Amino acid sequence: MKLHEAPSPNARRVHIFMSELGMECERVAVDIRGGENLSAEFLAKNPGGRVPVLELDDGTYIGESVSICRYLESIAPSTGAPKLFGDDGLAKAQIDMWQRRVEFNFLLELAGAFRNLTGVFKDRETCVKEWGAVCAERAPKALNMFDTQLGKSEYLAGDSFSIADITLGVSIDFANMVKVLEMPELENLTRWKNQMDARASFSAS
Amino acid sequence: MKLHEAPSPNARRVHIFMSELGMECERVAVDIRGGENLSAEFLAKNPGGRVPVLELDDGTYIGESVSICRYLESIAPSTGAPKLFGDDGLAKAQIDMWQRRVEFNFLLELAGAFRNLTGVFKDRETCVKEWGAVCAERAPKALNMFDTQLGKSEYLAGDSFSIADITLGVSIDFANMVKVLEMPELENLTRWKNQMDARASFSAS
Repeated sequence: MKLHEAPSPNARRVHIFMSELGMECERVAVDIRGGENLSAEFLAKNPGGRVPVLELDDGTYIGESVSICRYLESIAPSTGAPKLFGDDGLAKAQIDMWQRRVEFNFLLELAGAFRNLTGVFKDRETCVKEWGAVCAERAPKALNMFDTQLGKSEYLAGDSFSIADITLGVSIDFANMVKVLEMPELENLTRWKNQMDARASFSAS
Repeated sequence: MKLHEAPSPNARRVHIFMSELGMECERVAVDIRGGENLSAEFLAKNPGGRVPVLELDDGTYIGESVSICRYLESIAPSTGAPKLFGDDGLAKAQIDMWQRRVEFNFLLELAGAFRNLTGVFKDRETCVKEWGAVCAERAPKALNMFDTQLGKSEYLAGDSFSIADITLGVSIDFANMVKVLEMPELENLTRWKNQMDARASFSAS
């Protein structure tokens, strides 16, 4: 099994997930800045040209970091801890819901702000600064929703650590790194983020 | 169980999903144009202010249409057909991957074009026409990826009908309704879409 990847929040989500499950696999670097992900060879692995992509030993490729994590959990030996995608139908739905809320309300807006304001991929996409500013204004507002939820439960989707916590933690670290948002100070979110940073998996590289 | 909803592609995804499972439930109309989804009462049900939201009999709310569908499949009696989210770990990952590709590469771009070009929600969000035009140019390109895949398999995620087919079918119908994209004619996609339209669930309302 090989993970084709480039340094990004999405690769980090998979690294943390694997660390939590006690898994490792070979990693293959993809040169995104050089456009390797847009080559015919890479597009045969992942038609959207995105990374990471997981290559299975039989040559099957799985794209989308969340889908990769779903597969990894399905083949991982049990750690004894609750599953990171949930154990029963209700937990699975609630974890999926919070994970999607982080993606659609925060991570996507953050990415919109980052790409349109900095022009990091302007050699291959049209950037609209005015749109980047809209995204940069909207993204921090979503954090209030997570702060409220974290005032009610220890982890984002309830009493157990889950993929939703990984997505939110990685997104906040990325926001703090690229500095395109004005990040608010929120009490519950800070308490929770300190807990996340104390997990060995969050230092996984 | 009650589904709080407004007419939208997301509500239709849940209707089709329930029809495929032979399920029904009470529906409660939410007046989005009038801003009911932004009221304190509604935000207590779904903090993002989005519809649909599923209310369980014990007062638990599940938001995000895909998460609602995950829950519904977990409580549905088996129809004998393969599960719409997949039966084993690999199928689950591949269905999740295709469903996400439709959302991120097509449906979100379509929504970006629709909202920014028409200004349908300009009373509550900043619209940037230039960004709408970027989205309108990108969305149709994603359809090539689905057309290529549908040249290799009967359904989007393989040999079985799945949630990925529902998301793509609903998205294409929405694109044809709102007419903000130039939709290409693609052979495999057309073959597959005719099959979708022939399913009783796609006429569910």
